[in-house]
Amino acid sequence: MRIEQDSMGKIEVPSEAYWGAQTQRSLHYFAIGHDTMPREMIRAIGILKKATAIVNKDLGKLAPEKAKLIIEAADEVISGKLNQHFPLKIWQTGSGTQTNMNANEVIANRAIELAGGILGSKDPIHPNDHVNMSQSSNDTFPTAMHIAAVEEIHRNLLPMVTKLKNSLETKTKEFQNVVKIGRTHLMDAVPLTLGQEFSGYISQLDKDIARIQQSLPDLYELAIGGTAVGTGLNTHPDFAEKVAQEIAQITDLPFISAPNKFAALAAHDAMVMCSGTLKTLAGSLMKIANDIRWLGSGPRCGIGELILPANEPGSSIMPGKVNPTQCEAMTMVCVQVMGYDTAITMAGSQGNFELNVFKPLLIFNLLNSIRLLADACSSFADHLVVGLKINQEQIEHYLNNSLMLVTALNPHIGYDKAAKVAKKAYEENTTLEAACISLGFLSQEEFKTIINPEKMT
Amino acid sequence: MRIEQDSMGKIEVPSEAYWGAQTQRSLHYFAIGHDTMPREMIRAIGILKKATAIVNKDLGKLAPEKAKLIIEAADEVISGKLNQHFPLKIWQTGSGTQTNMNANEVIANRAIELAGGILGSKDPIHPNDHVNMSQSSNDTFPTAMHIAAVEEIHRNLLPMVTKLKNSLETKTKEFQNVVKIGRTHLMDAVPLTLGQEFSGYISQLDKDIARIQQSLPDLYELAIGGTAVGTGLNTHPDFAEKVAQEIAQITDLPFISAPNKFAALAAHDAMVMCSGTLKTLAGSLMKIANDIRWLGSGPRCGIGELILPANEPGSSIMPGKVNPTQCEAMTMVCVQVMGYDTAITMAGSQGNFELNVFKPLLIFNLLNSIRLLADACSSFADHLVVGLKINQEQIEHYLNNSLMLVTALNPHIGYDKAAKVAKKAYEENTTLEAACISLGFLSQEEFKTIINPEKMT
Amino acid sequence: MRIEQDSMGKIEVPSEAYWGAQTQRSLHYFAIGHDTMPREMIRAIGILKKATAIVNKDLGKLAPEKAKLIIEAADEVISGKLNQHFPLKIWQTGSGTQTNMNANEVIANRAIELAGGILGSKDPIHPNDHVNMSQSSNDTFPTAMHIAAVEEIHRNLLPMVTKLKNSLETKTKEFQNVVKIGRTHLMDAVPLTLGQEFSGYISQLDKDIARIQQSLPDLYELAIGGTAVGTGLNTHPDFAEKVAQEIAQITDLPFISAPNKFAALAAHDAMVMCSGTLKTLAGSLMKIANDIRWLGSGPRCGIGELILPANEPGSSIMPGKVNPTQCEAMTMVCVQVMGYDTAITMAGSQGNFELNVFKPLLIFNLLNSIRLLADACSSFADHLVVGLKINQEQIEHYLNNSLMLVTALNPHIGYDKAAKVAKKAYEENTTLEAACISLGFLSQEEFKTIINPEKMT
Amino acid sequence: MRIEQDSMGKIEVPSEAYWGAQTQRSLHYFAIGHDTMPREMIRAIGILKKATAIVNKDLGKLAPEKAKLIIEAADEVISGKLNQHFPLKIWQTGSGTQTNMNANEVIANRAIELAGGILGSKDPIHPNDHVNMSQSSNDTFPTAMHIAAVEEIHRNLLPMVTKLKNSLETKTKEFQNVVKIGRTHLMDAVPLTLGQEFSGYISQLDKDIARIQQSLPDLYELAIGGTAVGTGLNTHPDFAEKVAQEIAQITDLPFISAPNKFAALAAHDAMVMCSGTLKTLAGSLMKIANDIRWLGSGPRCGIGELILPANEPGSSIMPGKVNPTQCEAMTMVCVQVMGYDTAITMAGSQGNFELNVFKPLLIFNLLNSIRLLADACSSFADHLVVGLKINQEQIEHYLNNSLMLVTALNPHIGYDKAAKVAKKAYEENTTLEAACISLGFLSQEEFKTIINPEKMT
Repeated sequence: MRIEQDSMGKIEVPSEAYWGAQTQRSLHYFAIGHDTMPREMIRAIGILKKATAIVNKDLGKLAPEKAKLIIEAADEVISGKLNQHFPLKIWQTGSGTQTNMNANEVIANRAIELAGGILGSKDPIHPNDHVNMSQSSNDTFPTAMHIAAVEEIHRNLLPMVTKLKNSLETKTKEFQNVVKIGRTHLMDAVPLTLGQEFSGYISQLDKDIARIQQSLPDLYELAIGGTAVGTGLNTHPDFAEKVAQEIAQITDLPFISAPNKFAALAAHDAMVMCSGTLKTLAGSLMKIANDIRWLGSGPRCGIGELILPANEPGSSIMPGKVNPTQCEAMTMVCVQVMGYDTAITMAGSQGNFELNVFKPLLIFNLLNSIRLLADACSSFADHLVVGLKINQEQIEHYLNNSLMLVTALNPHIGYDKAAKVAKKAYEENTTLEAACISLGFLSQEEFKTIINPEKMT
Repeated sequence: MRIEQDSMGKIEVPSEAYWGAQTQRSLHYFAIGHDTMPREMIRAIGILKKATAIVNKDLGKLAPEKAKLIIEAADEVISGKLNQHFPLKIWQTGSGTQTNMNANEVIANRAIELAGGILGSKDPIHPNDHVNMSQSSNDTFPTAMHIAAVEEIHRNLLPMVTKLKNSLETKTKEFQNVVKIGRTHLMDAVPLTLGQEFSGYISQLDKDIARIQQSLPDLYELAIGGTAVGTGLNTHPDFAEKVAQEIAQITDLPFISAPNKFAALAAHDAMVMCSGTLKTLAGSLMKIANDIRWLGSGPRCGIGELILPANEPGSSIMPGKVNPTQCEAMTMVCVQVMGYDTAITMAGSQGNFELNVFKPLLIFNLLNSIRLLADACSSFADHLVVGLKINQEQIEHYLNNSLMLVTALNPHIGYDKAAKVAKKAYEENTTLEAACISLGFLSQEEFKTIINPEKMT
Repeated sequence: MRIEQDSMGKIEVPSEAYWGAQTQRSLHYFAIGHDTMPREMIRAIGILKKATAIVNKDLGKLAPEKAKLIIEAADEVISGKLNQHFPLKIWQTGSGTQTNMNANEVIANRAIELAGGILGSKDPIHPNDHVNMSQSSNDTFPTAMHIAAVEEIHRNLLPMVTKLKNSLETKTKEFQNVVKIGRTHLMDAVPLTLGQEFSGYISQLDKDIARIQQSLPDLYELAIGGTAVGTGLNTHPDFAEKVAQEIAQITDLPFISAPNKFAALAAHDAMVMCSGTLKTLAGSLMKIANDIRWLGSGPRCGIGELILPANEPGSSIMPGKVNPTQCEAMTMVCVQVMGYDTAITMAGSQGNFELNVFKPLLIFNLLNSIRLLADACSSFADHLVVGLKINQEQIEHYLNNSLMLVTALNPHIGYDKAAKVAKKAYEENTTLEAACISLGFLSQEEFKTIINPEKMT
Repeated sequence: MRIEQDSMGKIEVPSEAYWGAQTQRSLHYFAIGHDTMPREMIRAIGILKKATAIVNKDLGKLAPEKAKLIIEAADEVISGKLNQHFPLKIWQTGSGTQTNMNANEVIANRAIELAGGILGSKDPIHPNDHVNMSQSSNDTFPTAMHIAAVEEIHRNLLPMVTKLKNSLETKTKEFQNVVKIGRTHLMDAVPLTLGQEFSGYISQLDKDIARIQQSLPDLYELAIGGTAVGTGLNTHPDFAEKVAQEIAQITDLPFISAPNKFAALAAHDAMVMCSGTLKTLAGSLMKIANDIRWLGSGPRCGIGELILPANEPGSSIMPGKVNPTQCEAMTMVCVQVMGYDTAITMAGSQGNFELNVFKPLLIFNLLNSIRLLADACSSFADHLVVGLKINQEQIEHYLNNSLMLVTALNPHIGYDKAAKVAKKAYEENTTLEAACISLGFLSQEEFKTIINPEKMT
């Protein structure tokens, strides 16, 4: 153990740890749950600390040799090499101050080490005065929240939703001529093609992707430069803009300085809205996964129009059972995202005055939703959609039996007579054709001309 | 119009209205939405005002002739006769003060009228000094919330859930020997009887009823006697107990005085918990309604084991279509109850210091949930369960085809061999018997002894 | 009573009612709750029925004299004149078929009446064959949902949010030079101006307005033309486009035909997303309303920086009490919108195959959210923001006492020494200046130059 | 790597892993998110596997030497020694089959190893035929869910809530004579003691504890014995009862066999209800934490009646700042629990036929809620409540200034005159006494007799 110190006094810290007094205190005071700050956030804070060091140097506030040390340590944070030095929990102070200080302390100590100094000495790099220069947790933490969310959406979520959409498009083309019965209210309806049915899924995902993209511009706006309450106290007038530019450069993403820093600290509507787009995606995916598992239900006592890939044994007791497990993982993920959305919505509404202090919860849940949706989409595409097959025999059997083909008679004999045909066929367990002819509404020839499933799609 | 007056000054009120200045102000300042205070709450406030008048009289604080007038007017409120004099919105002050004053004003003016006085004169009955004697909105409104919720649960919800349960029990007996295929993961599984399947629903509802009943004792505790902040300022020491007794007498329900008045004003955990039991019931009903509509899906292209009553034409375009509309109404109600539960949960957490000011929202949503669940259960029982029939042919067809009967072979040939039987039968589209014999695992006689669906239930 | 008839047979209907057999059945089978189909939806269905009649006539499918009758009756529906003929509940069939048939029946009977025919005769206008020509409930109801939602957003919600924003802008200018203490974590922080604080609210609302507007293009897409399952069975190829154009013309809003009709019937992601923008707005408003009531808390035992208008007496027991009732109505509305969002999200995920059958719930909740937010914003602007005043004395008192002005010393003496100053001042209950000088960190002159609240904003 | 095999064929498994083919497949097919099956669940499955081996042996179905090996391996699972062999994700099959098989495989291989056999040989212990004997994932997984939830509630949650309650009781006694101003609507109200205020919190927690306890009996009911669909296929008639007894013995908790196995597999209302009690607790804790941080707001520009322990530096930029960080962690936890409740509620409603396939999500979220609440209560008690102090000067200052003491005049001069006193005092910024005397309503002596804050509590 070694001794570290902060404004509350001295405290023992494990000698191999780069973190300092405030991180150590947080470990003691916040032994709540298992959830630690996501690695994506640590990386984002690393990016931010690097960018601020560069800008502070350029603005003449930070000595170049100090900046160099900070940048080198920050690069190690970004790379993930120092991940084990970020042990703090989500359930800490609501501003994320302790994680910001964790980063300040780790970077300071690692920089000190690089300079050949003594860990904990704050010399030549002080965690507050140098690493946190021109910053407050109140602007750094939300800045990192936005960086982390945007990076994960860009690099993980959007590609994986697109991958799923593409896999469905391939199937849509494959299935474009498969005429099948439609179902509304779960009941037999008029026909459509399987390709048409799947085209609805693609349309949903297309729009979901657009919705998520629409939520990004608000997330590109960074709080940095607002410092403690949004006024930018203790910062150079050019600081905010320059740091945002630097972050844009490092990440290759179009981050900008938030025009209104007061809202950027005190509210997180951009995250609430982003979560709103994610739960909308979750709703779409729930529909898609449910449809596919119901269409694949059986194999002998369900709907059975689709055949899902048999990836693994489905039961520990029923031999040979195969279950729609990818659909189950997907629907669980969707429900979880809706749960996270409730928490995000509520947390987003609870800001007071100059600060919202539900920040760690907000980014934890948002990153969880992004990651789960991305992974589930990828898994669903690879392990289900790609291997999806149809049961042609079953599809045709239903199509030829449905009474709802009667709908095509409406323009010819009117709704009321058509209803009589359907009822008669149902009650007498016969065909529409037989019922229609027997009722004298149409000749066999007329009937056959009108009732043609392919033409009804 | 006539002139009424309160501590803010004079204001015009429609001459035919019994309400006074504060109600009139609320109409002006809270023109938000369409939702007015539920009639069950108005009735409950009437009960409370009657009880407090009786007790104030008995304690010698209120002149008997004044008490008599108040009681007579309160009885009219209870009866619903004065409902049109309670026009206020839910979206008003969060303490419900305006509705409490609405009641004070209406009762005062109606009492004045009964006494031959002049409306608005506050003579011989003053809305604050007499009708609201020994009370604050802060204890009257939550008292009325509990009375209204308990009455509706007792007189509406529990009887209707029980009615639904009874209708399912009748069906369970009717279906007790119908052996059918089970389904897990939507996929064919081992058999059970339809009666067993339905017994699960009854078990769920039985427990839901018990859960709701468990939530009642907390609701029997009444805030009355706490006045403004829970200390009971301006009340007689016996007031709280005596009013609770009086209310118990009027309603024939075991209401008591809440032991801790501070929590009774500042928190509404009893309502949050009650809503928790309602959403649990909603979850059960969602499962039941979904099962029934899926089992009844078809008639020719779905599962089709159940036949639901054809209550109305199902489609404006597809003649002869019949849909599981009672299931749809029920599942919509269930989802709505879950939405109300989110709002109730959040609102319940937002109290500050001596008062929670989300009271109108809390009782509005809770009464909505109670009413919707009660009505939906009643409708579901009458218009669906009672008329439910089975499609015996379809049930037998599935039962005889399912490959999962193979499970019964496990104890005889082991899981691995049983899996081979199932796979072979599936791939070769043959029977388990044929596959098992062909693999040489069992003789036909052995197979027939083991695989007997009836014995598997 | 008179006799009406549908495909299920004859039924008695009140003689003064325009509705027919299916509406009457729905009244019987769906006696669930009090919530009836919103008038905005009835109007929207009227618009749709008018548009379809025009287009069916133009396409040569409907005789001009029949079209004329339907249009005339539909115009009466649009105007609200026939509102009492739309008695159906939300908690009906999940496709809204019964409300679509209600409209078909009312328009048919009113048209028959206009033509001098006999109510219930379906001659010369048949509810299905003529009023519902080329339509299904499955495409008409979601079309009306979009029309109703868009109209209410355009004509009610956006103007009212803008009105609130404008009222806040006026105050922002008025307060732009009021320097006050900032608060983070509810604790004293560094100063800002009251105008800056309010500018955060304006920024939030500006973005909320943009978010709601972004959700509109998806709502402009209309399902009409999809008929029963999205294939457009029984419609003319030009029908969908032409009806959308007609609706755009009638409403003066840029409606178009949905490119993918399968998704338009089976999913309602556009409504889920729209609700997502509304709950984001609700979160912003909750923050704003909470801030204002806390800043106005007191008058003597709270923060007391703001003085809210005294609209009405606040208490039935505490004379002279004035409460932040507009904030309470607003925060209740916000929580309610979040509850509706949960229900909408869940309902939106529950579509199966060609249809989502939670449609009435979806539009009921969305219209509730829109109406409540619009009304609450208007009320909040008129009855609170406009009359908001500051307590200059209190604001200055706090500003001059806060220890957090010490932050401005950081760049001069470093974080650690600044912390010592703050601690000393707190513990010795003295001023920062006294503590700083006593610690020998700065001269009085230096201190006064650095610590200047106005310069810190 | 070594080769393992299941009914799908051969697959490579890391040679040091005890798991087998199905676990390995799950790792491949379900690379979704970071969340792995909680250790509490692994322990619970270990308990179950031990109990079933004992009972199968006692019933003569399992050879004693095989049972001994399984029990020994299961004991290692219970102890946590084999935790690293349970790598599977939450987002897998919705029945938890893969985790059940993970346990079957690990126990089988470890038992084989103990017997000196070859890993993967299934000899002498077969994962399905022996470890899973008389079981299905469909009854084992929900059994383990109940065991895990109950154990954590008993051993963690209830003790920690009680600890918090006790710490508050200590403070309540300490503060019982501290007379302070009450606040309703955030506005000054009539007085109460700080002890009374805190007594409300204790009352809330007392009832929350009772609610959680009420939810336990349903969780004591175990699904085991239902096997695949609830019928108990392939089990001895005494199996269910005996296993439940064995589990009760091992855990020293009153587990019983669920009377209705169909509901036990297909629904999870007991978990939904339990979550309902947890979110009610969360609502109580949110109120308590919010009250305490607001009462402690300041130190100079807030309410400042309480002084919270200064555990750590509060700001990276504002030196000397101390924040209510325990309150922030607590309120974040509360909101998170509400989010989990939404997911649990929705998931609980989504069962179909004989199985609910959201089981991993349900137990993951429930255990998260239990753990977070337990840890947060413990932390809040230790690091906040124990060290809570009052600011006597500030409390007295407010008490002596509040205008709402005027309420005590009501019984003496009536509401209307009392209101005039309050208004005059407010407008003229004077005392109630001065205003009352000046208005001629009471003499100074009368006033002083009536207005006595201590007597008002």
